[in-house]
Amino acid sequence: MPIVTIQVTREGHTPGANAVTAEEKKQLIEGASKLLLDVLNKPLDTTFVVIQEVDMDNWGVGGMTVPEYRRHKQAKQS
Amino acid sequence: MPIVTIQVTREGHTPGANAVTAEEKKQLIEGASKLLLDVLNKPLDTTFVVIQEVDMDNWGVGGMTVPEYRRHKQAKQS
Amino acid sequence: MPIVTIQVTREGHTPGANAVTAEEKKQLIEGASKLLLDVLNKPLDTTFVVIQEVDMDNWGVGGMTVPEYRRHKQAKQS
Amino acid sequence: MPIVTIQVTREGHTPGANAVTAEEKKQLIEGASKLLLDVLNKPLDTTFVVIQEVDMDNWGVGGMTVPEYRRHKQAKQS
Amino acid sequence: MPIVTIQVTREGHTPGANAVTAEEKKQLIEGASKLLLDVLNKPLDTTFVVIQEVDMDNWGVGGMTVPEYRRHKQAKQS
Amino acid sequence: MPIVTIQVTREGHTPGANAVTAEEKKQLIEGASKLLLDVLNKPLDTTFVVIQEVDMDNWGVGGMTVPEYRRHKQAKQS
Repeated sequence: MPIVTIQVTREGHTPGANAVTAEEKKQLIEGASKLLLDVLNKPLDTTFVVIQEVDMDNWGVGGMTVPEYRRHKQAKQS
Repeated sequence: MPIVTIQVTREGHTPGANAVTAEEKKQLIEGASKLLLDVLNKPLDTTFVVIQEVDMDNWGVGGMTVPEYRRHKQAKQS
Repeated sequence: MPIVTIQVTREGHTPGANAVTAEEKKQLIEGASKLLLDVLNKPLDTTFVVIQEVDMDNWGVGGMTVPEYRRHKQAKQS
Repeated sequence: MPIVTIQVTREGHTPGANAVTAEEKKQLIEGASKLLLDVLNKPLDTTFVVIQEVDMDNWGVGGMTVPEYRRHKQAKQS
Repeated sequence: MPIVTIQVTREGHTPGANAVTAEEKKQLIEGASKLLLDVLNKPLDTTFVVIQEVDMDNWGVGGMTVPEYRRHKQAKQS
Repeated sequence: MPIVTIQVTREGHTPGANAVTAEEKKQLIEGASKLLLDVLNKPLDTTFVVIQEVDMDNWGVGGMTVPEYRRHKQAKQS
């Protein structure tokens, strides 16, 4: 009876989207559940998956919020 | 100084409600804190309880989102 | 399908015990599951409870580890 | 590659604010990342920080929600 | 920069094993990272995966510890 | 009443150490508590800090366990 928690930034990943779409959530849930079935033989029915979307300025990396970090990286590359 | 985290789907449990009510939250917090007092003798003042409501399509079971899973189960039963 | 996570310090709560006992764990699991049944009408079968025991010097409060904090409080009271 | 999760009540900490401000979030992220660099020599780039703001009536202490607990403490002091 | 947390009971899933094996952990980490790449286009390098093994009597379902729950289910089926 | 959870790999960070030392844990707890005091004015007494040490092969990045990932990076650099 595994629990898989997936934390991602709240943002769009396809043109026009500004959040994880319903279809993407379905794929994450299906994929994570199948992974536990394939690797550890856990029945699909016993796996819980929880997706947590985190606002961009609540997520930090490199000592900055994600938006700052991306601007910073882009500036260095150009 | 225990921490109790309660994760539930964001939905109503009483007629007309579409979310966990303030009264239900009070009961969850009171009940969880008393449980730690009763079983492990932890003073009420030192127990933190955090309730996390998770959107229905962010919660998966059986390889599907919760709404899909419930439709699926109902279809099998009828 | 709620998930209840109970985090406690790894220590004994009864004479002679230096950890949470098997009996205490049973009571925590039973109590937490019943709480979700009583308050939100969640079937026992759909509630997961996870107990996490945390070493005393991995838990901090008041800016100190728990053992330091308790010594500190006792010193102030005497 | 540490992960620091900071859970706080969703409320303002400066006059006029009713939530953690963008500036405060920056400081939390910067401070937590520097702490891991200073104490464990973890490069800033490898530390993730996640801030979770929890609604006031989803957080319990003393067997009550935070707003109740504060009223209760104030009443005892006056 | 997603974080995937996988919580499973500490037990063997192959003959002779009494814990999740190193090979199974590799597959869980690889599979979870690829899932985030496939579904949300997250580069492998930016995904953290944390596996938490939970002792069998620290995990509850149906109001009982996992070992009790399994005995209970088997008894009902026979 | 914030909760700060610090997850790090279980390994030494000073010569001769193969784990986070007691002194390093004290500094993490003290630093995290002071951060919440400085930024959000939270009293030290109300902040909990939980340190979770995660075995090296239970932590993944880049689709591999941490030890594999480090070997991989070193091989690329030489």
